[in-house]
Amino acid sequence: MSSSGEMSLRIDAVRRGFEAAGAAVGVFGLSSNLRYLTGFSDEPGERMLLLVVPRSGEATFIVPELYAVQVEAHSPPAALRVWADGEDPGALLTEVAGRLDRIPGEVLLDDSLWASFALRVQAAFPGRSFGLASAVMARLRERKDDAEIAAMKGAGGIADGAYAAVTSEPISGRTEIELAGRLEAAMLAGGADGIAFETLVASGPNSALPHHRAGTRRIGPGDVVILDFGCRVDGYCSDITRTVVCGGPTPEIERVHAAVQKAHRAARDRVGIGVRAEEVDAAARDVLTETGYGERFVHRTGHGIGLDVHEPPYIVKGNEQRLEKGMAFSIEPGAYFTGRFGVRIEDVVVVGEAGAVPMTEAPRELKDVD
Amino acid sequence: MSSSGEMSLRIDAVRRGFEAAGAAVGVFGLSSNLRYLTGFSDEPGERMLLLVVPRSGEATFIVPELYAVQVEAHSPPAALRVWADGEDPGALLTEVAGRLDRIPGEVLLDDSLWASFALRVQAAFPGRSFGLASAVMARLRERKDDAEIAAMKGAGGIADGAYAAVTSEPISGRTEIELAGRLEAAMLAGGADGIAFETLVASGPNSALPHHRAGTRRIGPGDVVILDFGCRVDGYCSDITRTVVCGGPTPEIERVHAAVQKAHRAARDRVGIGVRAEEVDAAARDVLTETGYGERFVHRTGHGIGLDVHEPPYIVKGNEQRLEKGMAFSIEPGAYFTGRFGVRIEDVVVVGEAGAVPMTEAPRELKDVD
Repeated sequence: MSSSGEMSLRIDAVRRGFEAAGAAVGVFGLSSNLRYLTGFSDEPGERMLLLVVPRSGEATFIVPELYAVQVEAHSPPAALRVWADGEDPGALLTEVAGRLDRIPGEVLLDDSLWASFALRVQAAFPGRSFGLASAVMARLRERKDDAEIAAMKGAGGIADGAYAAVTSEPISGRTEIELAGRLEAAMLAGGADGIAFETLVASGPNSALPHHRAGTRRIGPGDVVILDFGCRVDGYCSDITRTVVCGGPTPEIERVHAAVQKAHRAARDRVGIGVRAEEVDAAARDVLTETGYGERFVHRTGHGIGLDVHEPPYIVKGNEQRLEKGMAFSIEPGAYFTGRFGVRIEDVVVVGEAGAVPMTEAPRELKDVD
Repeated sequence: MSSSGEMSLRIDAVRRGFEAAGAAVGVFGLSSNLRYLTGFSDEPGERMLLLVVPRSGEATFIVPELYAVQVEAHSPPAALRVWADGEDPGALLTEVAGRLDRIPGEVLLDDSLWASFALRVQAAFPGRSFGLASAVMARLRERKDDAEIAAMKGAGGIADGAYAAVTSEPISGRTEIELAGRLEAAMLAGGADGIAFETLVASGPNSALPHHRAGTRRIGPGDVVILDFGCRVDGYCSDITRTVVCGGPTPEIERVHAAVQKAHRAARDRVGIGVRAEEVDAAARDVLTETGYGERFVHRTGHGIGLDVHEPPYIVKGNEQRLEKGMAFSIEPGAYFTGRFGVRIEDVVVVGEAGAVPMTEAPRELKDVD
């Protein structure tokens, strides 16, 4: 999946995308797009590292000296221009940009490129207009090939295993952070490359906050606990959410969980080639509206996933994009009762010929974990 | 350190900075600057979340609905404008920007703001010129107060403990990833909020790559192993590097390690109020040049650190900035022999009245860990 030949093919596809979009050049920083195009990845940082891909002619990779050996090892299909600490890479960028003067069209910026670099790129391409690389990259990345799906399935299986392991032991008395640590340790022990995002463990009233991060709250009897976690294999992410109870659930909690589970099922069943993304959102939303929890479902139904935890396609009202084979996204309806509790069930699915193929399979029933 | 009153004072200081810099407004995304100004933090994502701080008048916080309760809990000194999934936050941004029309000056962008948001901010402020928020924020953030230093010392102590724990057991036969996992687990068990950056474990020839990430290589007899790791307490980072050997070191390895240790000592001794940053770099570099390893030291001597792992001031040739009390930065000379081995020793220090105060104290001698 990360062979040098494959990377060349991907850059060729990007060039064709630029051609079709009327773009002159794309500028990528340390990002999932860069990983997709070169196999090289690291966390973004303050040192200028840019891949400049013109619609025609050679690509240039501006690289800080201390990355040079690692970048070379990936044999990216680009000319390397190395700068050292203490030098100003701005001159290098201006020179590289200057050689692309004759190619007309927009300059596309990597969507997650830091403003500190974006402003320098804008200065190096005076008089140009600027767009976002996702205009071209999303089309290439949102349909996963077999190797990408295998990596995602691998990451999903590891997450399933972590859920089984962590919920096979009592959770009462543990803090949210402890439980998050156990999930992460189980995923790393299970063979993950790394954690896909900071594990969310939201207990008791915290479970009513869709983006609560694990804190120091201690889990106790009667708590609803949302576990939202995932890991990476070959850079590709898993993302799963299960809601458990610590001791016998109330009838209300059972009712809400059943409604969310039904909404999850309805959205999965709606997935198919040619279906619009917003129809999948509506399938989940309609179930929750019918059961009286429509206003409690305060977020979209899902997000695309791959090298990024969140990427196109988004499963949200207004997205009329039609699903295609190989698209991967989460289905994660929820219902939240501020100050009391919340419920969410999430799996990533891939669009197959026969509908949604789930990347995680852990039981979706409300589990009672003492 | 994160009280609502303190945050108001910080925003006031930012406004004075804008006044002095002739800036009209600052726009912040999910970043360390946002955490510094509001206490709210999360990983950056595709949903628009922006704090807009004008030089005068009320600040506005544009917030996705699913963050609203958490943002409100921090009582940021700003008017909240909430948008829901399925809505377009662009109109909201245009409206907020429009009300700032009459304030002349540059619009400053958060340095790590994604280009996807930066382009929308540029569109919302037509005809303006744009600069970087670091022009104002760096001055505020680079001098740490007592509470910030206490957090950094806490994070340093936890890292010291993890080093002692992990190097008290044999490492031969373990993979780099396993060792990285043990360091991270030890830091979390030691009370860290989280890991500050992906732990680097570079063994054998990998140790010659300054930015090698932990991989599947198995550590064996004779290997040099660089351990570079850190954690967070209250959001503030530690960052320490030690070089160990797996079994008796060769005389050459001992010689290089001694030279790097001497360079580290020289740089620490050079630290003082009023000293230029580049003088600290030169102190380390001169020692390595004298011992014949000058060309092997391929990176700067250090980077500032705080809420970000890398932030101003940078300890690098050409940085004539004078050190001030409370500035915090790493001192991390190294020497790298491609294909063979490398050595690096790193501690974060804070500038005090009497010189450098180290945040980590683990023994700097070459440790032999079977």
